[in-house]
Amino acid sequence: MSRLFMFEKPLGMRDTLPGLYETKHKVRHVIGDVMKKWGYQFIETPTLEYYETVGAASAILENQLFKLLDQQGHTLVLRPDMTSPIARVAASKMLKEITPLRLAYSANVYRAQQREGGRPAEFEQIGVECIGDHTISADGEGIALLISSLEESGLKNFQISVGHIGFVKEFFTDILGTEDRVNALTTYLYEKNYVGYREHVKQLPLSSIDKQRLLDFLSLRGGEEVIEAANALLENGKGRNALDNLKQLWETLTDYGQVGDRVKFDLSLVSHMSYYTGILFEVYADQVGFPIASGGRYDHLLSKFGKDTGATGFAIRLDRLIEALGTIEAREPVECILFSAERRKEAYELAFEKRSSGIKVVLQDINGVENLDASTELYEEVTMLVGKAGKESSL
Amino acid sequence: MSRLFMFEKPLGMRDTLPGLYETKHKVRHVIGDVMKKWGYQFIETPTLEYYETVGAASAILENQLFKLLDQQGHTLVLRPDMTSPIARVAASKMLKEITPLRLAYSANVYRAQQREGGRPAEFEQIGVECIGDHTISADGEGIALLISSLEESGLKNFQISVGHIGFVKEFFTDILGTEDRVNALTTYLYEKNYVGYREHVKQLPLSSIDKQRLLDFLSLRGGEEVIEAANALLENGKGRNALDNLKQLWETLTDYGQVGDRVKFDLSLVSHMSYYTGILFEVYADQVGFPIASGGRYDHLLSKFGKDTGATGFAIRLDRLIEALGTIEAREPVECILFSAERRKEAYELAFEKRSSGIKVVLQDINGVENLDASTELYEEVTMLVGKAGKESSL
Repeated sequence: MSRLFMFEKPLGMRDTLPGLYETKHKVRHVIGDVMKKWGYQFIETPTLEYYETVGAASAILENQLFKLLDQQGHTLVLRPDMTSPIARVAASKMLKEITPLRLAYSANVYRAQQREGGRPAEFEQIGVECIGDHTISADGEGIALLISSLEESGLKNFQISVGHIGFVKEFFTDILGTEDRVNALTTYLYEKNYVGYREHVKQLPLSSIDKQRLLDFLSLRGGEEVIEAANALLENGKGRNALDNLKQLWETLTDYGQVGDRVKFDLSLVSHMSYYTGILFEVYADQVGFPIASGGRYDHLLSKFGKDTGATGFAIRLDRLIEALGTIEAREPVECILFSAERRKEAYELAFEKRSSGIKVVLQDINGVENLDASTELYEEVTMLVGKAGKESSL
Repeated sequence: MSRLFMFEKPLGMRDTLPGLYETKHKVRHVIGDVMKKWGYQFIETPTLEYYETVGAASAILENQLFKLLDQQGHTLVLRPDMTSPIARVAASKMLKEITPLRLAYSANVYRAQQREGGRPAEFEQIGVECIGDHTISADGEGIALLISSLEESGLKNFQISVGHIGFVKEFFTDILGTEDRVNALTTYLYEKNYVGYREHVKQLPLSSIDKQRLLDFLSLRGGEEVIEAANALLENGKGRNALDNLKQLWETLTDYGQVGDRVKFDLSLVSHMSYYTGILFEVYADQVGFPIASGGRYDHLLSKFGKDTGATGFAIRLDRLIEALGTIEAREPVECILFSAERRKEAYELAFEKRSSGIKVVLQDINGVENLDASTELYEEVTMLVGKAGKESSL
């Protein structure tokens, strides 16, 4: 094990410097405002949770969990997502009879990374959970709110792919029979490895009709017409309920006026979040290789915390959204007043006055500056109040 | 080891529900605005740092650190404070020749707790660091900014105690000689155990004059006159520089117009943060048993990261400040539109209209509500758009 250089940070950990900080702050604020207007209430949960409760309920892979032992011998995890902690809070403190419950969060989550230069091990998610509402209206609200949030943040070009994990499972089970076979085929979808999927299907011991159904399944992408095409692939009705859900969802989103070019069906969409049970979705933006947001319905997670109720939600990856927005905020203008002891009081009064009118002002004792040129270059305007009182001079 | 109940959280970990969340949000926002007006720039650092670098530089006790091992065999810590991470960032990325540097943060920090019902193990600090300015003006700016921040947050009754760790050390060393003896006596001050201090002094093998000097030391509390009284206790000038610092600080704060009743000297003030080297301070508010803010000068911490420069800063404990403010925000008014499929579109349009004018509106499919009475009780106003189109009705 090599000795660490004093500036090193753990794998995947990053600093956020002032320009990016302010950008994140603004985007978080705009999106938070939209969520509040839609009646969602923000909450915060601890960074550390018990592995045995929230850790086990999350859908994040074991080797991505940051784990530690507490002094009582329990294993703790740094929260790998926010959906499980919110399910815990909702079930334990807030749910009672009063449902549906609309909760929101903006929080960092943690996923251990295996190598340098890879993905961030800590990143911020902004999201909502609508808990205790089984209707398709709730799914539609999630997608409509997500679109509204992204549009308000200034994002122009993005698209939402909508699928239904229930449809995939029922359709595959109907053809393949066993769970193992279903899982093997689903893995290709999760990896978006469609070449591998086709190869795999060709080698399956199935009738040529069933093989063709599995191959045609991959082309179930597009608008409303996809429902019809999917229906045509069904035998004995398995998967029909899921398609009915999607049809209702389309109608709901049409009433929001938000289908247009934003929403497309992609019935081959599956997620690494294994708790999803119904409609699920992902958002892609131009020039960002990973989804900037994702979400869906999870109807069994709450029962792990003793409440048998459904829920739906989504999370936006703030870092990826900002990458998609493509703007790093310029430094906000700051003025500087340089003073010496003789005119200190005058300097303080001038700073007070300027700050009261909203101007950002650094007050700097000239004796605290080593390199005057470099230090004053940072500021919009520099006022010198140095030496015997007289007229102020601007640099 | 007992099995955990599904709702349990790790020792000292807490949820923040909507009312408190909004209060924290508002106070954080107001204080952040003040800091920005004073020219401080916000940054963010990772939750996890290497124990060997930032962990070792922090002044937090070993048994309060949350530690874990990464996959390379290095020990990581959950940051126990923000001063050391900011020193790392300043030294590595930002300092170069351009000093002074004014940085701000609002971030959770982590301190493992030993027992149930004790202090929080995760809490938020809002603070600033002014790095690379050795002048007393920088110390004065810190205190003036702290006062301004607390006043803007709405806090009425609070007081800042100001001491000087250099004075304590020089004065004690002059009388006691060895570092061990100095540390033994200083421990009583840290614990604010003045009875113990007096007992300890009486048993020391010192002249009655020196014993009296150590006892008189405890009464060095009050306004400007304390400097004079402290000077009278000195022999051969040890501690005089520190008193000169405090005198200059008083003049600086007087020019800010902020001494008044807010600031008092307390020369027996010491801190558990061992990196302080000069002026240090603590804020107490009515009815809160612990300091709501603290800070001071640390002139050697940056050199641990390869930059030999001084710095000064402070941190406000957001949880304690909110306790001192004594207000938990009332729930913000939210309206509800209950709809059925027939009038969904109309409901969406009404919600859009209300939200556009700034009203918070929950849109609720009536089929998603189990207990209509309990659910609608939460809202300021409920509009029903159910069944065949007609006039809307309010509950």
